[in-house]
Amino acid sequence: MIWSMQETPRSFDELRVGEAYRCGPRRISRADIQDFARLSGDLTALHTDDAYAATTPFGGIVAHGVLNLAVATGLAYELGVFEGTVLAVRSTEARYDRPVFPDDELTLELEVAELEPNPRPGRGRADFHVRLRNQHGKIVLSGRWTLLLRRSTGP
Amino acid sequence: MIWSMQETPRSFDELRVGEAYRCGPRRISRADIQDFARLSGDLTALHTDDAYAATTPFGGIVAHGVLNLAVATGLAYELGVFEGTVLAVRSTEARYDRPVFPDDELTLELEVAELEPNPRPGRGRADFHVRLRNQHGKIVLSGRWTLLLRRSTGP
Repeated sequence: MIWSMQETPRSFDELRVGEAYRCGPRRISRADIQDFARLSGDLTALHTDDAYAATTPFGGIVAHGVLNLAVATGLAYELGVFEGTVLAVRSTEARYDRPVFPDDELTLELEVAELEPNPRPGRGRADFHVRLRNQHGKIVLSGRWTLLLRRSTGP
Repeated sequence: MIWSMQETPRSFDELRVGEAYRCGPRRISRADIQDFARLSGDLTALHTDDAYAATTPFGGIVAHGVLNLAVATGLAYELGVFEGTVLAVRSTEARYDRPVFPDDELTLELEVAELEPNPRPGRGRADFHVRLRNQHGKIVLSGRWTLLLRRSTGP
């Protein structure tokens, strides 16, 4: 894994397997969790009810796993690497390894895992290893994303 | 696949492989897409800029893939099957098969794929096949979720 120092937009052809990017931190607020509950419709008590959440092994309200995934995609946008080059997000795999609590601060790590030119000209498929860490350096989310990216040149 | 007619809370022990549930539709509004862009921080032009989105093969603004996944989790909550029985969402795999446009109406289908009692007493791992369809019956998201559920009885 080689940390990139240049976070300018990358076309498919400008990526290298093993190159990695880091972005963050972003703080998750209580309001973010409430907003996500309302927007998604997932009002599960662990995310919305302090009294109930206090009785669980988590000891209090935690962020929805998919909120953490959403925040990871926002950090990937902020990174700038995909600006103007991403054509579509094909798939996301995410394991929710540890709970995220209100006021936790999350940092994204992306590492180029696999690159495959697409049969359709002008585009390629890029797979990334994804890790989201909290302020203690612990992994809270790990997974893999597949993006469709523009090529800088013809096929 | 056997469609369930009873959408009451299910413990791990009350699930059967092949049993399936359906919930929806939920309409995705333009405001939902804007709210998700703000909350996630993913301001990619395809989701936020009408003029740009009109120039893409999609022909207009589309919902973020992870917003569709979030809505799927909200529909799973609404279903009622997991109320009081879900302990944690362990992982989500999602393929974004087709674009979702503002005013599309989404319906969730969940099918029990695999059941594995957990070494820790009182809980079990349940895997579900997940499909989200639009108002034309086309699959827009497909994948697999792993949930940790309460058991009704001891280990």
